This record gives sequence, C-alpha cells and structure tokens, in this order.
Amino acid sequence: MSQITPRSQNQARWYQDVVREAQLADYGPVRGTIIYRPYGYAIWELIQAGLDKRIKAAGVQNSYFPLFIPYSFLEKEKQHIEGFAPELALVTHGGGKKLEEPLVVRPTSETIMYHSFAKWIQSYNDLPLMINQWNNVVRWEKRTLPIIRGLEFLWQEGHTAHATKAEADKEVIRAITMYHDFVRDQLSLYSIVGYKTESEKFSGADYTTTFEVLLRDGKALQSGTSHMLAQNFARNFNIQFLDKQGKLKYVWQTSWGLSTRIIGALIMAHGDDKGLRLPPEVAPIQVVIVPILKQDKSNEVLNYCRQLAGRLKDMGFRVHLDASSKTPGFKFNYWELKGVPLRFEIGQAELETGEVTALRRDLMTKFKIKPKFDIITEFLAKIQANLLSEHKKYTLEHTWEVDNFKDFKQAIDKGGFVKVFYADDAKVEAEIKEKTTATARCIPMSSLDQSGRDFYTQKTKAKLTLFAKAY
Amino acid sequence: MSQITPRSQNQARWYQDVVREAQLADYGPVRGTIIYRPYGYAIWELIQAGLDKRIKAAGVQNSYFPLFIPYSFLEKEKQHIEGFAPELALVTHGGGKKLEEPLVVRPTSETIMYHSFAKWIQSYNDLPLMINQWNNVVRWEKRTLPIIRGLEFLWQEGHTAHATKAEADKEVIRAITMYHDFVRDQLSLYSIVGYKTESEKFSGADYTTTFEVLLRDGKALQSGTSHMLAQNFARNFNIQFLDKQGKLKYVWQTSWGLSTRIIGALIMAHGDDKGLRLPPEVAPIQVVIVPILKQDKSNEVLNYCRQLAGRLKDMGFRVHLDASSKTPGFKFNYWELKGVPLRFEIGQAELETGEVTALRRDLMTKFKIKPKFDIITEFLAKIQANLLSEHKKYTLEHTWEVDNFKDFKQAIDKGGFVKVFYADDAKVEAEIKEKTTATARCIPMSSLDQSGRDFYTQKTKAKLTLFAKAY
Repeated sequence: MSQITPRSQNQARWYQDVVREAQLADYGPVRGTIIYRPYGYAIWELIQAGLDKRIKAAGVQNSYFPLFIPYSFLEKEKQHIEGFAPELALVTHGGGKKLEEPLVVRPTSETIMYHSFAKWIQSYNDLPLMINQWNNVVRWEKRTLPIIRGLEFLWQEGHTAHATKAEADKEVIRAITMYHDFVRDQLSLYSIVGYKTESEKFSGADYTTTFEVLLRDGKALQSGTSHMLAQNFARNFNIQFLDKQGKLKYVWQTSWGLSTRIIGALIMAHGDDKGLRLPPEVAPIQVVIVPILKQDKSNEVLNYCRQLAGRLKDMGFRVHLDASSKTPGFKFNYWELKGVPLRFEIGQAELETGEVTALRRDLMTKFKIKPKFDIITEFLAKIQANLLSEHKKYTLEHTWEVDNFKDFKQAIDKGGFVKVFYADDAKVEAEIKEKTTATARCIPMSSLDQSGRDFYTQKTKAKLTLFAKAY
Repeated sequence: MSQITPRSQNQARWYQDVVREAQLADYGPVRGTIIYRPYGYAIWELIQAGLDKRIKAAGVQNSYFPLFIPYSFLEKEKQHIEGFAPELALVTHGGGKKLEEPLVVRPTSETIMYHSFAKWIQSYNDLPLMINQWNNVVRWEKRTLPIIRGLEFLWQEGHTAHATKAEADKEVIRAITMYHDFVRDQLSLYSIVGYKTESEKFSGADYTTTFEVLLRDGKALQSGTSHMLAQNFARNFNIQFLDKQGKLKYVWQTSWGLSTRIIGALIMAHGDDKGLRLPPEVAPIQVVIVPILKQDKSNEVLNYCRQLAGRLKDMGFRVHLDASSKTPGFKFNYWELKGVPLRFEIGQAELETGEVTALRRDLMTKFKIKPKFDIITEFLAKIQANLLSEHKKYTLEHTWEVDNFKDFKQAIDKGGFVKVFYADDAKVEAEIKEKTTATARCIPMSSLDQSGRDFYTQKTKAKLTLFAKAY
C-alpha cells in the first residue's frame, strides 16, 4: 500500500492522497471530470437515501427533466444567463448534423423545468408544486478539485412554486434547515446557516441562503444552497395561476440543491493523518472484521469470523470480513485509511472469551466488547456523536471575532471563520477579496438581530457576517 | 378529465393518451426528449430499487463515470464507433471556447470505463471486476416514441471483466436471466430470452443476448440486453492481468443494460381500454381510497378513511386517500386510468360493517373485504400473478409457428411472434425486413437444441428463431 501524506504536514497533498488511496474517486479522461469508484459512490448512495427520505417527507415529488436545454431558454432570465454563460457546455452536432440551435448541457434546471411549470400550473389547486430531481449537471469550471469542484457533478435540485411570497420564503428556510439537520444528524457536520451577500447569491434569485462547513485546513465550503427566486422566473416563463378570486397571478418560486461536493466536506472536516474518519450513518462499511490467524487454529477463527459477520449483517449492520492473505498490520492501516468506524480483531483468545478487541477509528482507542446488537449500536452512535462534537469544537475554536481590517487580515491568515460587522457592498467585498483572498461566506441567521459598525467602511447598521478563505 | 382513445380502437393513440393523461411523462422542448413526471418517475424508482438489489446481490458494485467521453476513445474499437457514430451528440464548445477535441455525450460507457479498467486491473486478484452504474445516455435517434425510444434515456449499465471466457459466458447468462426473472416477478411480464442474430447484435460484441416482450399491438420490444464482449475491447484498451502463473493475459468482458424503455413495455403489455394496469410491485399507489360522502355523515366517513389510510401506510402499503372535491365517478375513472391495482370505496354502509367495497383493477371485479394486512397482501399477490398469467397467455396465443414465407407474411400481419427455422444471414434478414417490416427478435435459448430447414432459403441446420414487427 502506498503511504499517504499526513494531514498535519500538507493538507492539499493529504486530500489528493486520501481520495486516491481510499479508492473514493479517480480522475476522468476529460480535464476536471471525476470517476466515483465503488467506495466513494457507496457514500453518495447513503447520502442520497437519507436526504431523499427527508425530501419526500416534506411532500416533494421526484421527477426527471432532460439533460439538453435550448440555448434560448437560458436567455429568458437576464441575470441567469449572465451568471451561467461563461460556464456552459454546448452541443452543436447531433446525429452527424449541425444543429440549428445549440443545446446547453444543463448547468441547473430552472429554465427547462419552469417551461413545464407554466403548462402544469393553471389554478391555485395546482399549488404548491414541489418537484425534485437527482441528476448530473455540467459547469465548465476553470479551477477544479476532485469531488469539490468539477466540470460535472451529481446533485439533487428541488424546485417549488407557491401562491404567496410568504409560503415561498418559508420553503426557502425549510429546505436550508433540512440540509443543516441532515448533515448534522447523518454526516456529523457542524454548519452555519445564513444568507449570502448580494455578490455571492444565485444568478436569478432575490436572495440565497447557504450552509457553510469549516474544513480542517481553515477554509470554508459552501455545501448547499436554497434560493428565493421570487417572481423573476415566473414573469419570464409566464407561470401564472388563477387564485380563489379568479385573478391571474404569478407564482413565487424557490430552488435548492445539495451535491457530491458534500463528500469533500466529509473528507476534509473529519479526516486525520491516517486518512478518512467516516460517520457510521454514511459509512459503506461500519464494522470491519480482521481475523488474527495463528497457523494451528486458523480454520476455527475464520469460521467464527464468518459466522459473526453473517450475524451482524442480519442485524442490519454494514460489515466486511477481510479474509485476504495480507498481514493484520497491513489490514489495520488500510481500513483506518478508509475510515471504517469500528474494527474487530478476532483471534483464538477472542474465541474463548466471546469478546472481541474493538478499535474506535475516531479516537483510535482499543477495548474489549461483546459483539451484541445493543453494544455495537451504542458504539456507532457514540462515534457519530463524537465526530460531530469534534467538528463543532474545531469550528468554534476557529471562529474569530474582530472589528478592524488589521486584525481581520491576521485572523484570515490563521484560517477559520472571521466574524465582523459588515454592510453588504459588492465593491467593498471585491476589494477585501483582492487584499486577503477571503470572501463573505454568509450572514448567519442566528445573529440577524445584531448590528454594528462595518469593520472596513465604518458604515453603521452593518450585520454580523462570516468571512473566510473558501473552496 | 380528458377521455383516452380506447386501446381496442387505436393502440398508437391510446398509448400517447395514456402517457399524457396518466401523467407519466411529457414531451421535452428538444425533439425526442421526455420529461418523467412524478407518477412515471415513481415507477422508475421502484424498478431501480428492485433491480439494484438483485445487481448488488450478484456482487456487482455501483459507481459513476463521467458523461463526456473523448471522441478518440470511441474510435478505438472499430465496430463500436461504426455502430454508434450516426447517433452521437457532440460537445464542441465549453466555457466559451471551442474545444480541441470534440466530446461525445455518452451513448453507452464501454470506452470510458475500460480506460479505467486498464489501470485498475493488474493481476488475477483484481478479477472478476464487476461494476454497474445508473445514469443517463444520449443517442440521436431519428424516429422517436415517448419512453420507448428517445434522444436521452435513463438506464443501468453493468460492466464486468473476467479471467476466463467461461466465466464471462456465465456472466452474460446470469445477467439476462436476472432481467428475465426480475420483470417476471416484479413487472408481471412474460418474456423470451434468446440470442440476437448477427445483424442485431451490439456493436463490439461477439454475441448479444436479449429478452423480448410482446406488446398488445402484436409488436415486440427488445427490453434489455447482455453482451459477450470477449476480448474485443480488452485488446484495444490494453486491459491485461498477470495470471497465477505470472503470464500476461487479456481479460474477458461483458456488458448488460436495462432502461426506462421497460416502462413502455409495462404500459403496452398490461394496459386496457380504460388505461394502465400496474402490477402492485411497481405501482406507486397500490391502494386508492375513495370516500363516498353523503351530506349528513361526511365527517365520520372521512375520518374513518383517514385512519384506515394511516393504518395501511404503517403496514407498508403504498396508499392514497383521494379526499378531493371531485365526484366518486370522476375519481373512479381517474384512478383506473392510472392503473392503481386496488380501489376501496368507503361510505356509511362500509363503516357499519367494517368491510370495504374493493375493486380489482386487473379484472374490474367488485367485492367486499375486510381491510386487513393478510387479505390485502393476498389480493395484491393475486393481481401481480394474474397480470403475468394474462400476459403469458396473450404471448403464447400470439406466437405462430410456420415453415414457409407465405404463411410467415400472413402471420406477421396478424401480429405477434412468428417462429421459424432460420439460418442466420444478414442479407436474408434485410430482405425479409424489406418485404414484411419484421425483424429477427431472437433465437430462444429454450429451443437451441432443435434445428431444421430454413423457411426462406431452405438451408439446413437452421435454428428456431422468433421474428416480429418491433419497436
């Protein structure tokens, strides 16, 4: 097995090493594309299953819209095409012929979906319309990084239409809260929910909400967004409904998405020098069994391991028995790198006592346990909770509150979130970015009621805002 | 509600009407593309869940490869590019610039996957490699038909690499058998498994197996295929492994796929004049409850219906209570059109007896039952089984055995499978197609041991082969 660069030495190289050596993903032949290998894709499947349940529980229905969008559709919403034009991939030839109009490979599906919404929505009876789709989208990014930012990514995009602004506002918050709770409960990620500043909002939205995750290199990752589209698309796509009084009105819309990039957050928020540390809820393997074989009793131990693996599977755990011919030491490193939450070592001694030697990957502590349903469930829950509390602690310890630009620069260089009073202004934000490379991550919802003097311009009525270097 | 054309009057119009009025799908803005609406997509989700389980049980792992394939990759296998070149969609511009090499939007993923296989496979320890992916593919079809044949479709594609020819042969059969069993058990479809003739096989395969479904208009539908790729791609992509003796060898490969087109089979094999008839296993709604409200007792009945719906959901049934303000007659038609297997009508009388008036959609028979777990389960199983036996009966009754071209033509015009002894010959097949529009569907595996004189050329040692008009 190749060694990985310890995270403490070089986070960037550590990341590339982990992605490759844990067999999460591989580079595709086209620049900026990625291949999800089975171990990485299994994490995505678990994320999908968990989030899909929450999406459906909210009354949202899945559907599928085409990959190809006529170029003219994107042009209908002025801000939308301005934002996306530089990132588009265009199909110009099909079936051996040049097409009359180039087709856009979807970068997001607002325009093609809302073309249908205009047909499907006639009266207030058709509202709210709440549609989601799991698909692939393409954005021609200049700087790419495996999983975090690529030419093509997998995601879900939710799109809703409502009769009133108040309902749409509520849905924007419901969706971003759903994401926040989902990554907290299933991915053990602590995140900050807030509003994007004007220069960071979605092209075509009135406002954008986001949840931001702080990674172990001190950079922030925008991990999912929920947008208030207001009536911007409705007016351009003519999505109208007859209200109860028989008056024709435009609908109010939202859209929200979470992508495979969240796997990048998972890697970089929890990983350590030895590799991944996966929360049990999304770990493709929750328990790995490593037999410790002495020559004379090999069969007995292996049989016991097989039986135990079968029993644990029947209980609903995701278990892998590593019966390969490699040494125990090699296996230990390998499964630690892959972030498996619990390891059971089983040799002759364990057979006799009915206990196994267990290793908790999050703490790297060893202890003896009986491999029973309740005990394993409890340990997995503890690991799940500990990873969250570690990540929360790290985030809070790397959140700096400052009130002037000099301290701001120093804090940004230390890494982490820098909390300042800031009066949203695109020009100022560009200036700050140029001087420090930091960007406004969000205006946290939890401190919306506070206001003060802008740390940079000294304007009053500025709001508490988080800045950070970001991916 | 709009009326649908009865199937017995005009199958083509009936199909388009059902797809639209049952809200399965809608046309996309680009010619030949399709939008899966929630009801149609829910069927696909149930198909995916069921088939994915069988795929994983066979030891195949899911992954995800990029949408874009360098054009040069497709050219590496000569037959492959010859077969697919006329159907390709090409991306020529990305990020505002013309690309140096056009990218192909994947029509299938052999070439991009096998580029990785060459890196991942080093020794016999890495074999068999068994990978599947669920994704979207694009083929620029000239004639399109909603769900059955479009520019873009959803599918799964399995790709395996083996050390020996025998193992690969076995895998080809395992996959096609898995499909056959899956559609029999979950989609109530009777299908014929066999080998494709030379002119119908996959571009790049040594041989192709297929399962063919006979639709109610007498046309056949190729519903899934499994290909023996032999070493054709391995040689061109240099996929080699060290065997146990340390000798470098090319792997043996297979690929197999099943797509959303199977939903077309589901519609056209089971539907009747009133619309869809869905097998319970893949019905998004298995039981619809229609309250029959008299003015004075409305609340009591509605409450009972709500409680019953809740209880049935808790039992694991997919249930919908139609509490809308439409008339019962309207609701009956609507849910019959949508093919819901069981309907419960509940009014004051039903409250008093604790029984409900149930309608079996497959037979349109009414009876009283107690809405208990065992009873509902039994009825759903009966519907599931009856749809299969009806479809089998229809298929067998529309399979004609003939031994000369005159009878062949007559049988083809009646519709159905026509069984003949036929000596595989591409030129002859083209001639038959021109004269009758029928194509060779498959050489059934069940009668491989039989041989006779070719019905057209009189050659000896011809094999029993099914012909039909096909989609």
